[in-house]
Amino acid sequence: MAETRSLLVVGPHPDDCSIKTGGTAAKYVEAGHEVTFLSMTDGSAGHHKMDRFALAARRKRETEAVAETLGIDYEVFDIPDGGLTPSLENRRRLIRFIRGVDPDLVLGPRMNDYHPDHRYCAQLLQDAAYMLIVPNVCPETPPVETLPVFGYVADHFQKPIPFDPDVVLDVTDVEEQKLDALHCHESQMYEWLPYTFDELDAVPEGDDARRAWLAGDGLSHLTEHTEMNVADRFRGELRARYDDASAVTHAEAIEISEYGAPLTDERREELFFF
Amino acid sequence: MAETRSLLVVGPHPDDCSIKTGGTAAKYVEAGHEVTFLSMTDGSAGHHKMDRFALAARRKRETEAVAETLGIDYEVFDIPDGGLTPSLENRRRLIRFIRGVDPDLVLGPRMNDYHPDHRYCAQLLQDAAYMLIVPNVCPETPPVETLPVFGYVADHFQKPIPFDPDVVLDVTDVEEQKLDALHCHESQMYEWLPYTFDELDAVPEGDDARRAWLAGDGLSHLTEHTEMNVADRFRGELRARYDDASAVTHAEAIEISEYGAPLTDERREELFFF
Amino acid sequence: MAETRSLLVVGPHPDDCSIKTGGTAAKYVEAGHEVTFLSMTDGSAGHHKMDRFALAARRKRETEAVAETLGIDYEVFDIPDGGLTPSLENRRRLIRFIRGVDPDLVLGPRMNDYHPDHRYCAQLLQDAAYMLIVPNVCPETPPVETLPVFGYVADHFQKPIPFDPDVVLDVTDVEEQKLDALHCHESQMYEWLPYTFDELDAVPEGDDARRAWLAGDGLSHLTEHTEMNVADRFRGELRARYDDASAVTHAEAIEISEYGAPLTDERREELFFF
Amino acid sequence: MAETRSLLVVGPHPDDCSIKTGGTAAKYVEAGHEVTFLSMTDGSAGHHKMDRFALAARRKRETEAVAETLGIDYEVFDIPDGGLTPSLENRRRLIRFIRGVDPDLVLGPRMNDYHPDHRYCAQLLQDAAYMLIVPNVCPETPPVETLPVFGYVADHFQKPIPFDPDVVLDVTDVEEQKLDALHCHESQMYEWLPYTFDELDAVPEGDDARRAWLAGDGLSHLTEHTEMNVADRFRGELRARYDDASAVTHAEAIEISEYGAPLTDERREELFFF
Amino acid sequence: MAETRSLLVVGPHPDDCSIKTGGTAAKYVEAGHEVTFLSMTDGSAGHHKMDRFALAARRKRETEAVAETLGIDYEVFDIPDGGLTPSLENRRRLIRFIRGVDPDLVLGPRMNDYHPDHRYCAQLLQDAAYMLIVPNVCPETPPVETLPVFGYVADHFQKPIPFDPDVVLDVTDVEEQKLDALHCHESQMYEWLPYTFDELDAVPEGDDARRAWLAGDGLSHLTEHTEMNVADRFRGELRARYDDASAVTHAEAIEISEYGAPLTDERREELFFF
Amino acid sequence: MAETRSLLVVGPHPDDCSIKTGGTAAKYVEAGHEVTFLSMTDGSAGHHKMDRFALAARRKRETEAVAETLGIDYEVFDIPDGGLTPSLENRRRLIRFIRGVDPDLVLGPRMNDYHPDHRYCAQLLQDAAYMLIVPNVCPETPPVETLPVFGYVADHFQKPIPFDPDVVLDVTDVEEQKLDALHCHESQMYEWLPYTFDELDAVPEGDDARRAWLAGDGLSHLTEHTEMNVADRFRGELRARYDDASAVTHAEAIEISEYGAPLTDERREELFFF
Repeated sequence: MAETRSLLVVGPHPDDCSIKTGGTAAKYVEAGHEVTFLSMTDGSAGHHKMDRFALAARRKRETEAVAETLGIDYEVFDIPDGGLTPSLENRRRLIRFIRGVDPDLVLGPRMNDYHPDHRYCAQLLQDAAYMLIVPNVCPETPPVETLPVFGYVADHFQKPIPFDPDVVLDVTDVEEQKLDALHCHESQMYEWLPYTFDELDAVPEGDDARRAWLAGDGLSHLTEHTEMNVADRFRGELRARYDDASAVTHAEAIEISEYGAPLTDERREELFFF
Repeated sequence: MAETRSLLVVGPHPDDCSIKTGGTAAKYVEAGHEVTFLSMTDGSAGHHKMDRFALAARRKRETEAVAETLGIDYEVFDIPDGGLTPSLENRRRLIRFIRGVDPDLVLGPRMNDYHPDHRYCAQLLQDAAYMLIVPNVCPETPPVETLPVFGYVADHFQKPIPFDPDVVLDVTDVEEQKLDALHCHESQMYEWLPYTFDELDAVPEGDDARRAWLAGDGLSHLTEHTEMNVADRFRGELRARYDDASAVTHAEAIEISEYGAPLTDERREELFFF
Repeated sequence: MAETRSLLVVGPHPDDCSIKTGGTAAKYVEAGHEVTFLSMTDGSAGHHKMDRFALAARRKRETEAVAETLGIDYEVFDIPDGGLTPSLENRRRLIRFIRGVDPDLVLGPRMNDYHPDHRYCAQLLQDAAYMLIVPNVCPETPPVETLPVFGYVADHFQKPIPFDPDVVLDVTDVEEQKLDALHCHESQMYEWLPYTFDELDAVPEGDDARRAWLAGDGLSHLTEHTEMNVADRFRGELRARYDDASAVTHAEAIEISEYGAPLTDERREELFFF
Repeated sequence: MAETRSLLVVGPHPDDCSIKTGGTAAKYVEAGHEVTFLSMTDGSAGHHKMDRFALAARRKRETEAVAETLGIDYEVFDIPDGGLTPSLENRRRLIRFIRGVDPDLVLGPRMNDYHPDHRYCAQLLQDAAYMLIVPNVCPETPPVETLPVFGYVADHFQKPIPFDPDVVLDVTDVEEQKLDALHCHESQMYEWLPYTFDELDAVPEGDDARRAWLAGDGLSHLTEHTEMNVADRFRGELRARYDDASAVTHAEAIEISEYGAPLTDERREELFFF
Repeated sequence: MAETRSLLVVGPHPDDCSIKTGGTAAKYVEAGHEVTFLSMTDGSAGHHKMDRFALAARRKRETEAVAETLGIDYEVFDIPDGGLTPSLENRRRLIRFIRGVDPDLVLGPRMNDYHPDHRYCAQLLQDAAYMLIVPNVCPETPPVETLPVFGYVADHFQKPIPFDPDVVLDVTDVEEQKLDALHCHESQMYEWLPYTFDELDAVPEGDDARRAWLAGDGLSHLTEHTEMNVADRFRGELRARYDDASAVTHAEAIEISEYGAPLTDERREELFFF
Repeated sequence: MAETRSLLVVGPHPDDCSIKTGGTAAKYVEAGHEVTFLSMTDGSAGHHKMDRFALAARRKRETEAVAETLGIDYEVFDIPDGGLTPSLENRRRLIRFIRGVDPDLVLGPRMNDYHPDHRYCAQLLQDAAYMLIVPNVCPETPPVETLPVFGYVADHFQKPIPFDPDVVLDVTDVEEQKLDALHCHESQMYEWLPYTFDELDAVPEGDDARRAWLAGDGLSHLTEHTEMNVADRFRGELRARYDDASAVTHAEAIEISEYGAPLTDERREELFFF
């Protein structure tokens, strides 16, 4: 593995990567590594008032703001939100993209999740995984030399089996950066998600007031609905990893997929260095 | 939730709704609520002698008889039996249909079942669930205001995990109505299903004799193969719910899906009022 | 079940059948039964140096050598390796093929496996299973009279649940035949698989040397990566079945699918006679 | 070409073959040849009152009556009316069917026609034509030894070029048989087509009255809208072929396709022997 | 035909309707009739600098400006520009939309055009046409009572046959409105189209200057490349229709399709009243 | 246009480019220009005895021999022969490939041809043409700066309109190179094509004898069936272009497509310089 490591996070919609891995991304950037976020869809369905066209454009700009805030690359595929399918064409597009990034670690959702785009994003990732090293698949893009480790981000679904983390990561000291990233997704953080949580009236006006609300009640709602912060849920795992686990107030968790490279001790140390 | 509640049952074939939820439907109708059955396919493959064309027509007439018998609505999609796929087009058609019904409770199969149409019916239901509230998906049909509860009907498959009911419902006092509904599916109750169970010779001639057979041996075979009556299997759960559980001779069971609205105590009381 | 039994093994790629069931096949042939191997794809992606066209032709010839070595039939579908999808067209093609073979036992992969072709092969098999007896599905090919038993071959994947064998079979006395079959897949045994295991340098030159290496280190690598020999993993199950289980050095395991015919005691005796 | 010739007519809907080639079919049967009609779709959309299920069943029975009336074979594919697409799967199904019939002459619509099913039926036919002789296409069904002649039936569309017959055939002496065949398609002749022609009120009650009306006004309407009788339109071509062309009151016309076998003089004599 | 007539124009991209029928639309509105424009795609590919997301949002706003300027309805489907296919799903969506509008006249491109979206838009229109009156196709949306007339807008392609107008319409007195509508499509009129015509440097800055340029050189370029004004090309046809044809400086032309309602004299007078 | 011009020929099968443009390619190479041949399919269906796997491998090797013989690049897509469809995925693959070549001239078949792969190859080419310059289509591959000229190669089909060349090219002095290229396609020249022409018995044994036969009778058959040499057919056009047209014994013809760049006088001179 090269000195500089490369992290790729694949989310079904433009805000998913920030919610589930914003802290891990910030830690990677802080350590001088490279981070790429990819949204498989254009996010054009996540609003109660805006049409698809205006929304997709706005969310693209939000990802550009995240990229600048976190110091990462952010790509958005032009697949319509709510219309992701596990087709060969989408699989091949993803294979070509991942090969271009050549990551050491790829993170994304599990196959069990409430939104079809989430599930098919997971399916595309697992369908792409082994193919990354096979030269005759997508021969116009050279294969990676080393299969990356694939991991799942946290969710709260129970069937057929619950999320079971292999690594729980303390991101407390980069929580502000993560919140800054989330703050960029204003169409989601202050409009659509509060609407779906029936909390729209609680969202204040004004940029500063919103940012403050996000760090308080906003974070609570997000954590309740999206597992964005699993510090309390996996306190036991934190204790096993960190000396002062009780001081961890924000954590992100990763379960390793069986379909990527195995997480050897050496890789574990390199990829999860914090 | 409105005073009048709305139940939608989605089955892969025209007889599945009656088998798995005929009692629950009868209870809903009895209480003045609205019930809709939807068959995702035309049922044109379920016979050993009739061709697709004659069979689909016959089974459509059978659903019309069920609708009259139970006092419900019954819709049949024109997708060929044995050819259901989890395509975006089928998903959108289902979303538009469910939105039109605007149900409080939606029931259907689990992802684990012996027939591909059953599994893909389950997949379409879970792919449609969250989309019901998203305005930009199928924008020509307004979204529902409240996400319904989604539930699975009983089956006996064990892997990756067995059916695990959240509610087991006593339908003993409407068993006759349920049998009347099943009696309408004559192509299945007296021909195809006995054929597949190797019991065809046991089926008597004559309408009355058949109805009597259905209530006896017929019911036993169906229960053995389709979990249409789970009173014995879930006797323990019945005891937890009903004072006189030992008197329950016919029960239907429902497992709540993680992908619809959560079953709060209030919703539990409203939806499962008997 | 006829005196002469028929075994069909369906693998995603041309070498999968030999790896997972080469011993069982040899036992069937030895006992005078009929064996058919089917590769769902052309195997054209499994090489680091050969292009798709040359590789597919070579692997087809390898399957012809296997057929001759083991005394079985070997069919290869012309679906490109890495491009298998659970489409209706592929399902129907498989239904027609299985009906033509009319097997008593069908073996193939589980839905959980590292390669998308493996998973979709499993999905196609389970989607085809019940349809084999339905006359109106693929009406141009008569249905089978008796639904075969469907079984899964061994793998090491753990989620959502691990492989759990119903039968573990001693194939120690036909190991040489199995190795002869594997030896035919030279593009895989001596080139691609060692390449992916990072063992390419260890493979000797020369036909005899290779065959010897295959019986030693080669077998070890294969067993580690593909569960081709599960004698040690399922020693307990072997003890329950065989008196002298400690003498078993090569075993193959089968988990029965819930979607085919149930494994009655009678069928167990007939299908797993050794 | 064998002594006994084989004619295959492929229509998009169950009545198209009878309308366009009922006379030619009758002449073939009269001469001891074999005739097969194939409807690519189930005809389930051609009615203003009946649902798809009842209509498809009724039209299937109508084709069975035609088969008996004319002494031919009549096959109906279970593709939904209004949903025919030029997919590879449909093409292959058609190839396998044509190979099974092994015809000397295949007739069907041109690519230019008012109904999408007509156009895609034409496209499927031209996509299937050359493939009939290629062994590696649909290898499970042996190729035909001799590519048949393909012909188009008459239509009145002008762009990009009008129908231009190579043969105009006198079927006056079998007009009664053709009308008997059309009389079998009662859902079309007496209900849907008059409805679309705004002539529904003119259709009499009673079988005999209808048959009489069909031979008179019915025939006129059909001829005006569907080119079922082109005697007047191609009087000049009739004169070139028949001595007493003025006595021809019912004619059917065929334009030879460039994509089948060429119409040599020998084949012309054999295929168009009347 | 109702007193108030309804015109529907279907364009592949958001500016096509304005270019080809902006004058006709203005005449319809002026006469108190209803006009709907539909863009089959989101127009997200028509720019050399903007990404798909920002461009689609901008072009949607441009169509809203056109709707206000002309006093019409303007709908944009969320199909990606450059990705229109003649699928059944797209066909059905178009059928449902046209039925909702219930137009007397439908205009769109011919099958021969330089851009695949144009050709497939034409194919979808001709595939939808007859289905508008068939109740069993898209049964959830009632069929139209009267099939509309379908017409093609002008283009300059020659093969297999050139555009051959049935009506050439003088829109000189509404040219300003048409230019106002085109002026709304600023991303196209002043950026992308000049870029593709290699005239980008000639486009002035400033709203007024651009509007003036559009009326002069802009119009010339558009006319040369898109047949937006066919006054000179079809001067002869204008003379046959108008007394003072030489005064016509801006004309739009329509060729009637064979696949819609025939253009009777009565309909000609009603639909082309100016 | 750069000094060094680039010619891309796209054929449906591996021998089509050589047959229709082998002479033009040889002239381009002779003049120092670059030539690329692309076969859209793997050619795996063009044989009466070989299976798909062996045939595709053999024909790939034949294209490598052609590449060496003519001094060109030769790419073969892994799409199965007989299975080419005008899908978006195939279109995008072709767009990316053409952009990579960046040709000045692209040649391929017309939409009217006897083989479905030929027609869909033509459709893909015309669907790809304009998209080459649109940045938002296939944004991962930069667009070409200048749209190439697109031309059709000769065929003998008449409907809806016959091939009508814009340029007829004298390739007499490179006929030997063209025959050398054809000689490489031995599976076609000496086996499959003679088989389909019913001339298999006439093909001699031995490399030299075959090469001699190819130059004589072989050429005659090919010319009769495939328009590989149109010197006689377009003698008039040759006279208009060449002073000594009667000396031309081998000619290739090109009709310019309306969907690519127009053939200005300047481009005509540069692209057709011989």
